[in-house]
Amino acid sequence: MRFGFFDDLNREYVITNPKTPWPWINYLGNDDFFSLISNTGGGYSFHKDPRFRRITRFRYNNVPVDDNGKYFYIKEGETIWSPGWKPVKTELDNYECRHGLGYTKISGAKNLLSASVTYFVPLGKSAEIQRVQLKNNGPVQKKFKLFSFVEWNLWNALDDMTNFQRNYSIGEVELDGSAIYHKSEYRERRNHYAFYTVNKKIDGFDTDRESFVGLYNSYADPDVVREGRSKNTVAHGWSPVASHMLEIELNPGEEKDLIFILGYIENKDEEKWESKKIINKTKAKQLISELNTSEQIKKELYKLNEYWTKLLSNFQVKSHDEKMDRMVNIWNQYQNMVTFNMSRSASYFESGIGRGMGFRDSNQDLIGFVHLIPEKARERILDLAATQLEDGGAYHQYQPLTKKGNSDIGGNFNDDPLWLILSTTLYIKETGDFSILKEMVAYNNDESKAQPLLDHLNRSFLHVTNNLGPHGLPLIGRADWNDCLNLNCFSNNPDESFQTTENKTNGVAESVMIAGMFVLYGKDYAQLLEQLDKSAEAEFVFLEVEKMNQAIARHGWDGEWFLRAYDFFGKKIGSTENKEGKIFIESNGFCTMAAVGKEKGWPEKALDSVKKYLDCEYGIVLNNPPYSEYDLSKGEITSYPEGYKENAGIFCHNNPWIMIGETEAGNGDQAFEYYRKICPSYLEEISDLHRTEPYVYSQMIAGKDAWKPGEAKNSWLTGTAAWNFFAISQHILGIQPDYNGLVINPCIPKNWDSFSIQRKFRGTTYNIRVLNPLHLSKGIKEIFVDGKPTKGNKIPLQSKSSCEVLVTLG
Amino acid sequence: MRFGFFDDLNREYVITNPKTPWPWINYLGNDDFFSLISNTGGGYSFHKDPRFRRITRFRYNNVPVDDNGKYFYIKEGETIWSPGWKPVKTELDNYECRHGLGYTKISGAKNLLSASVTYFVPLGKSAEIQRVQLKNNGPVQKKFKLFSFVEWNLWNALDDMTNFQRNYSIGEVELDGSAIYHKSEYRERRNHYAFYTVNKKIDGFDTDRESFVGLYNSYADPDVVREGRSKNTVAHGWSPVASHMLEIELNPGEEKDLIFILGYIENKDEEKWESKKIINKTKAKQLISELNTSEQIKKELYKLNEYWTKLLSNFQVKSHDEKMDRMVNIWNQYQNMVTFNMSRSASYFESGIGRGMGFRDSNQDLIGFVHLIPEKARERILDLAATQLEDGGAYHQYQPLTKKGNSDIGGNFNDDPLWLILSTTLYIKETGDFSILKEMVAYNNDESKAQPLLDHLNRSFLHVTNNLGPHGLPLIGRADWNDCLNLNCFSNNPDESFQTTENKTNGVAESVMIAGMFVLYGKDYAQLLEQLDKSAEAEFVFLEVEKMNQAIARHGWDGEWFLRAYDFFGKKIGSTENKEGKIFIESNGFCTMAAVGKEKGWPEKALDSVKKYLDCEYGIVLNNPPYSEYDLSKGEITSYPEGYKENAGIFCHNNPWIMIGETEAGNGDQAFEYYRKICPSYLEEISDLHRTEPYVYSQMIAGKDAWKPGEAKNSWLTGTAAWNFFAISQHILGIQPDYNGLVINPCIPKNWDSFSIQRKFRGTTYNIRVLNPLHLSKGIKEIFVDGKPTKGNKIPLQSKSSCEVLVTLG
Repeated sequence: MRFGFFDDLNREYVITNPKTPWPWINYLGNDDFFSLISNTGGGYSFHKDPRFRRITRFRYNNVPVDDNGKYFYIKEGETIWSPGWKPVKTELDNYECRHGLGYTKISGAKNLLSASVTYFVPLGKSAEIQRVQLKNNGPVQKKFKLFSFVEWNLWNALDDMTNFQRNYSIGEVELDGSAIYHKSEYRERRNHYAFYTVNKKIDGFDTDRESFVGLYNSYADPDVVREGRSKNTVAHGWSPVASHMLEIELNPGEEKDLIFILGYIENKDEEKWESKKIINKTKAKQLISELNTSEQIKKELYKLNEYWTKLLSNFQVKSHDEKMDRMVNIWNQYQNMVTFNMSRSASYFESGIGRGMGFRDSNQDLIGFVHLIPEKARERILDLAATQLEDGGAYHQYQPLTKKGNSDIGGNFNDDPLWLILSTTLYIKETGDFSILKEMVAYNNDESKAQPLLDHLNRSFLHVTNNLGPHGLPLIGRADWNDCLNLNCFSNNPDESFQTTENKTNGVAESVMIAGMFVLYGKDYAQLLEQLDKSAEAEFVFLEVEKMNQAIARHGWDGEWFLRAYDFFGKKIGSTENKEGKIFIESNGFCTMAAVGKEKGWPEKALDSVKKYLDCEYGIVLNNPPYSEYDLSKGEITSYPEGYKENAGIFCHNNPWIMIGETEAGNGDQAFEYYRKICPSYLEEISDLHRTEPYVYSQMIAGKDAWKPGEAKNSWLTGTAAWNFFAISQHILGIQPDYNGLVINPCIPKNWDSFSIQRKFRGTTYNIRVLNPLHLSKGIKEIFVDGKPTKGNKIPLQSKSSCEVLVTLG
Repeated sequence: MRFGFFDDLNREYVITNPKTPWPWINYLGNDDFFSLISNTGGGYSFHKDPRFRRITRFRYNNVPVDDNGKYFYIKEGETIWSPGWKPVKTELDNYECRHGLGYTKISGAKNLLSASVTYFVPLGKSAEIQRVQLKNNGPVQKKFKLFSFVEWNLWNALDDMTNFQRNYSIGEVELDGSAIYHKSEYRERRNHYAFYTVNKKIDGFDTDRESFVGLYNSYADPDVVREGRSKNTVAHGWSPVASHMLEIELNPGEEKDLIFILGYIENKDEEKWESKKIINKTKAKQLISELNTSEQIKKELYKLNEYWTKLLSNFQVKSHDEKMDRMVNIWNQYQNMVTFNMSRSASYFESGIGRGMGFRDSNQDLIGFVHLIPEKARERILDLAATQLEDGGAYHQYQPLTKKGNSDIGGNFNDDPLWLILSTTLYIKETGDFSILKEMVAYNNDESKAQPLLDHLNRSFLHVTNNLGPHGLPLIGRADWNDCLNLNCFSNNPDESFQTTENKTNGVAESVMIAGMFVLYGKDYAQLLEQLDKSAEAEFVFLEVEKMNQAIARHGWDGEWFLRAYDFFGKKIGSTENKEGKIFIESNGFCTMAAVGKEKGWPEKALDSVKKYLDCEYGIVLNNPPYSEYDLSKGEITSYPEGYKENAGIFCHNNPWIMIGETEAGNGDQAFEYYRKICPSYLEEISDLHRTEPYVYSQMIAGKDAWKPGEAKNSWLTGTAAWNFFAISQHILGIQPDYNGLVINPCIPKNWDSFSIQRKFRGTTYNIRVLNPLHLSKGIKEIFVDGKPTKGNKIPLQSKSSCEVLVTLG
């Protein structure tokens, strides 16, 4: 069952039934001001940090779902309705929600009156615009009232939901014309406030939630709206909100346009006040003046649109598969931007108060983002590297406001350092900017310990070789990529974290997955060193990689697939010897990507085993058989019901590793089948089962052993986005930036006749057309660049602004 | 405006209008299993710890307020209603909520069908009973459906409201007959589960919230109830709930009784399972068998009633003022029990996840509790003392589950240690149990450092003398009793706590309040030492107290009142020299209670100044004038809007200090006037302004400088309860336990003719009648015990089980 459709031309997903199986959301904002917005107008805003600078309130896991948001109420006669259906839930004559790139337009109509609200954050502004367009579609004049509504958060989102003995006494607002200012705590240490205004004289307002809604009412039936009249309340404590009332008349056919602005302002300490207790509104008024007319707003919308057109033009594909095209060209890249901005902080499954930026997460997010805005990727790499520790390990997370490592969580997640090699090498391949390696970067945020970034990569590499276990394989530490495989943290106390409980000492737990990573990214690192003419160092690295290859060969192969790990006691995990958890995806993904044991045919064998034991209708599950009981020595993975999350769920993040492994083995059909299975645009028809948005990836789909296979959870903020884009763009479609050229190496379904790619790379637009007359998956017969044949499959850097590339497989 | 009435005979507050100005709640449970329940059936349950063992879900600061709870839905024909009005909010023909001692009975009637639900936790059981009584009051047979509903919390209340990417995948339930078992995470580290059952075969059930309610519905209109039919869903992840459906027929006049049980079970690790994945239900079945019939439940209710009758019989007053009598005899003592049980953890203003047990809080709570269950008081004193540090300081809070000091918050709240002297001396005076002083008690929970409790008191005392400032007054540390007066923590970062930010060093900030405390409790400590025949030590203590007296005399008197403090720079706070915050209540309270400068008439002067500058219609405000701007050097107090909380709010906790000071000065009328002003039973008529429950104290009432003076917040969990009981019982009514007898020393309004007290003390019931023929406030003319005159005003310990005491003022 579908709840809408893709409008590819407008780069929108159009929802036509408000009762989606879960709120289907969008993200607004690119810089500092961000909003989450659902298809019915739910969601919230924050500035930079969703925990410490939450602007409006939202209630997670609420009943009804997705309360509250940025709501509008229309009262015409006795009929009350909302353009987004919620919160009033009056049945509409028409409803439509268009989620676009950085904006959402929600439209409703009732009794020949139509109202649409376009929500977006203008580029470079700390404000959300709500452009309300009203039209009388009937034959007689209409008089009605429009009420706006937002609820302020008292800035610290965690405190806001827990500390009522204080919070109920501190709420403060200020009124000025149509603008409602929220200034709680501004009187003391805060130098920031928010405001909500509209570009028209208002006929009433409310700022006290209880007065507006009524103590025992819901957002569906606020007192003020029912009575059709604002109470003009000024909040003192309790729960400050902001609501405007506008009395509107529309002649037949007449349209009116209103601009609501939800803004955020920071003032310097010495400029906080206009006069005693009166906040300095200079900046707010300036911001309002820039966004106050329909013409200004149209321009801002146009700029936003152009911004995305330009970004996306760096990679565009045209194939015969529109589902793939729309994901690659629009939604997957868009999701990559969102994961870059949000990491794992604020979604409808992440409450925005728990986690900082993950070292591992953010490095991986970059692989789908680096081609969009390389300058931001550069900054992120340097921020991440600055949280690395002197021994090459890394804080597992850092706080976005301070950019300091989070010592509550600490380090010892032993895969972390290697991801820095991945992100840095990809950044340089994309940009050719070797200068980043010379940037001086602190260790543990201590500037006195700063070293060039290259030194960080070296310590990342050495962190593995310095932490090998008895089989010569990397020690796993608290966990590798799989946070839930906790081989050194024997937790038997339900009140503690599986990961941060004190490690067992003297463990010998090793990770074959990190071993595979080391082979793969070790080679990347060696190639980088070669580029720098550091051949001796490169030689050393290749040698260590080869040692690791041999260690895997001796101790990492189980006969039909790669082992997953050795546990605290040195026993195998992910082996036929095990009763449960015989085979895992991660080590097989990385070892096949790294082509470990290729000469012995191991990658093919491993991939066959993955297909046989892990593949199912909805994707590749993480392990098989699932764990049916808690195992103290394995940790959180065994805490989940079978088929969910890390316990044999389809953890979409790692499916691309197998796709890439398949392309390494030349199996284009299989690679693409795996791609399709978890790609949301292919799942649109089963939205009622899948539940999450058909335009973005989810972290997890329930696996074959689950109670409800195919049901997805945790959409939006997942490394799945970056990895799938990486797999489809670089390994299936096969466009691979390299230090000194663009490699073309597709591995596609055999039945494809052709496809085209537009790729902007180092200042040149490559218009690439790939022909597949023999219906092969892989292998290049010839490449012509502007009509001239090229040797090999790497196109050298071009000096022209564009070139035509014709590729024939064969 | 009133919303109900006191039913003193039944010891109940009866709410007759469900739309109270704020949810008016009650507490169920005395031992391990606790529930909060509102007048409309809202609230939640937990086992021991409201953060780590939350059994059912509640949403704080919700819209509508007070969602969710333990709900019942009745569907008769097309009419759907709830006995407690909420959540359905169908207007009822009758509604009544009776909050009693440890139980709440909510009754509703619609269309000649009546339903009442009695909620209570039987003594010694880990379960909440919901006894549902249904009656057909009409002339024809009725057929209808009854649905129950509770929503499970996934145990860790903070995690439950933040960690959805995990939580939505882990929910698990099990069904067995009518019993619905909630076993999320039982598969791994938890050894506890909950269940919800009814003593009748059910006609349907639901355990999946979304199926029961509908994704876009509220609790007011669940799908299942609207459709009149359970879906028999078994939850897998998302949000597990428990709902039963019962089809019921009632003949005219017929009644039916149903017993619902919400229980909590812990199993030993080796006894967790009945068979693979099937939980061991032995204990649950045993518990159910004990609570499964109406007869058993009637017995349990009777036992609960008897329990309270016995407890309250330790102190009963009969005067001509029924408002005072009902507070003293019933509600204040009841609130004392609740604060003892809950500290400041779980109320409708405290979310139950933030704070542990406060060192200062719990010691003070004991002064209103020690006469109820001295054995529990003893245990609490020892628990508290074990978190004391070796230098005599104390962790400011400890965690109830582990009883360990909370190192996130740490110590250096320099009033903390002295409260241990107060609680211990009062405990011994109540019980005569000097043996507690010999109990070996750890420091910092380190048993190897254990010393007798008396040593703890000594270090408490010395902690003050070892931490004196330049004026010989006690250094204040992070804060004294007023957590918001932060003289050494200059916080300019809104993301940090005012109290736990790093202290400024080299400060000289001193507290005149602690100085007053030291004089008061130092004398108590010296008297205790005298009781122990340690006269040299007592002498030393008296000497130190006298030094402090002199220090206050030299540096603590401002001319018309006692100074509050010296700040970091050695400047005065609470002085005429100040522009704002010229006078504070705390130091004037403690110095007048301690009669500092009595010979100079200072207490009277100070009390006059309090009346002149701090008193208002609704009570005594904390300071005057309020602070109008943030002051980095004073901290959180200056962060509140004027008239709220510590910034000139009526902080009810400290009003009794002035009442007691007035009784010390002999001003019975003034003392009682202060008592009446904040005593909730006197505020019943202004409930619409006061908002919180008229049967319990609130922490704060907005002061004269507030936007809405008289509006209360933060009811239930406040030291106000214990202190007001202490003031009224020991200082106004004047019944004071002492080491070797019962002191009678009333200080009452002059117009009182007489009053009577029943006081159980050391095994004897004292039936005390006080006559006031001359209409005095204070002074004893004569006392007869069983007809025999007694010398002085201390009645020696009696060997008889009861005695008649006749007191005449004069």
